[in-house]
Amino acid sequence: MSQRPIRIDCLQYANWSEKIFRQMRKGGVDAVHVTIAYHELFRETVARFEEWNERFERWPELIMPGYWASDVEEARRTDRTAIFFGFQNCSPIEDDIGLIEILHRLGARFMQLSYNNQSLLATGCYEAEDPGITRMGREVIREMNRVGLVIDMSHSAERSTLEAIDLSERPIAITHANPSFWHPALRNKSDDVLRQLGRSGGMLGFSLYPHHLSGGSDCRLQDFCDMIARTAELMGVERIGFGSDLVQDQPDEVVEWMRCGRWTKRVDYGEGSRDAPGFPKQPDWFRDNRDWPGVEKGLRKAGFSEEDVVRIMGGNWLAFYEKSFRPATRAT
Amino acid sequence: MSQRPIRIDCLQYANWSEKIFRQMRKGGVDAVHVTIAYHELFRETVARFEEWNERFERWPELIMPGYWASDVEEARRTDRTAIFFGFQNCSPIEDDIGLIEILHRLGARFMQLSYNNQSLLATGCYEAEDPGITRMGREVIREMNRVGLVIDMSHSAERSTLEAIDLSERPIAITHANPSFWHPALRNKSDDVLRQLGRSGGMLGFSLYPHHLSGGSDCRLQDFCDMIARTAELMGVERIGFGSDLVQDQPDEVVEWMRCGRWTKRVDYGEGSRDAPGFPKQPDWFRDNRDWPGVEKGLRKAGFSEEDVVRIMGGNWLAFYEKSFRPATRAT
Repeated sequence: MSQRPIRIDCLQYANWSEKIFRQMRKGGVDAVHVTIAYHELFRETVARFEEWNERFERWPELIMPGYWASDVEEARRTDRTAIFFGFQNCSPIEDDIGLIEILHRLGARFMQLSYNNQSLLATGCYEAEDPGITRMGREVIREMNRVGLVIDMSHSAERSTLEAIDLSERPIAITHANPSFWHPALRNKSDDVLRQLGRSGGMLGFSLYPHHLSGGSDCRLQDFCDMIARTAELMGVERIGFGSDLVQDQPDEVVEWMRCGRWTKRVDYGEGSRDAPGFPKQPDWFRDNRDWPGVEKGLRKAGFSEEDVVRIMGGNWLAFYEKSFRPATRAT
Repeated sequence: MSQRPIRIDCLQYANWSEKIFRQMRKGGVDAVHVTIAYHELFRETVARFEEWNERFERWPELIMPGYWASDVEEARRTDRTAIFFGFQNCSPIEDDIGLIEILHRLGARFMQLSYNNQSLLATGCYEAEDPGITRMGREVIREMNRVGLVIDMSHSAERSTLEAIDLSERPIAITHANPSFWHPALRNKSDDVLRQLGRSGGMLGFSLYPHHLSGGSDCRLQDFCDMIARTAELMGVERIGFGSDLVQDQPDEVVEWMRCGRWTKRVDYGEGSRDAPGFPKQPDWFRDNRDWPGVEKGLRKAGFSEEDVVRIMGGNWLAFYEKSFRPATRAT
């Protein structure tokens, strides 16, 4: 097992359980970035940290908190999964820039500046207009850079994303999305965004959420891996990894919370539709964390060298974690 | 300077400013335990941490956050004061035991189980009845032991204090009080409490707040140091240090907040009185942090050996910090 590449999944939102933690061990997942807030305000987000503290106390042989890149190696050495925390929206900081350092101290390592809609900081990918990064957004980017909280633009709109890449003094991430050249969903990213992201030292995590896949639930592994090869050419093989967006064992109420939060009293179907409002079916080659070895094989079959497979499976994320999570003024 | 004993003051509540931080450097204070909550609920307490983060950013050459015992030595090496945080009441955890680990992660290292009044956990020293540690109190003691948050019984009543000493699996502290054999204030502690505290490996911090001093503001340094010598005989010279309770540059509204919080609409004068409701005048030999060298001389004059002076000035607190702040299951 110590011979296999480090595996990092940079986005999941499961209904966490011992079953899933054991599946992560079976799939050799050394680290996972888990979403703990979509629309949660500060106190609600703290309650999510509390729930994770309970899990760490209960299953110390399966999981451990991830604060620093070195925790990925510690997890690997002790046959556990390191859990890194992130928010898909900026709601946890409410209107208080001081909460950024507080939440970083509690373990937050990624925060999206907007989730589908306009936020206090940036525009989401479903808005008709995208006026770019706001005044508060500029201050928050600076503060996130200072403390070591990674800017994630997965659900943000084009102009806001390009501006965030430009304004941020540290590389940013799009933890879970695919290129729109392959599948033109609103959530997927243009060549321009991907190129700028790559040039700035940022990272893209490939999503395995069916709405982001060409062919949806019927997408074939080889097609997915060929897309990865094309994206590597576009932005550099050092700039890509996975952010599966795996949403396992969640009831359909959860997708409604993700999409509607408290911002509407009506139903917003997001990437779904009235006919298919729930979670889509995963492709049969990626049902859960046990399927990572198959994805790894797919990369080899698509022609990636062993070195590049190691990079894409987790080496690139690990290098990104190393340069991203520490306060800007301290040495890593 | 590297020859002087380590100096730790295990309780202050100042109106913090660059002036006071510089006075701490002049007085050679390597570490201070600062109160950041009297009656503050969780979110208000987080705002206090945010204010301290701003101070750490603004005066990095004078102060640094104190998380572990090793930070005292780091502060000394870099000529700064390490700031350790504590609460004088259990209000920051509200009714949620999960907040203990959250607040420990944010930097809390001491929490009183009650402040003068009955709390959810224990009884305060001004209540007529003291039914001892409550059901939730027992759970909280166990959790504080687990995460490394020190139980402080400075403002608690006798029975609750004795029970806390007994129930806690790790030594507890009375960070700021004096023996009642010297000055029988309600806030001072009985021989029985001090003896049990000493036997269990706990610590007493001597208070320099005039209401806790024999003779009040007119107390003489030699009388104070002779009392320390008697207390050392009672509980052991390894079990004592300072917790000055210095409340510097605070307006009198603050003493009202300390005493009345939101639990009464009338004025409670606490240790003061209608005629003297404000902060009492400090003794002229301890006006602020620059006076620590004088206190140190007083200990020598009272007959303490050089070794014991080193212990009382900070060595004992440092040893206590070393065994107290880490989670119970991990090695220090």
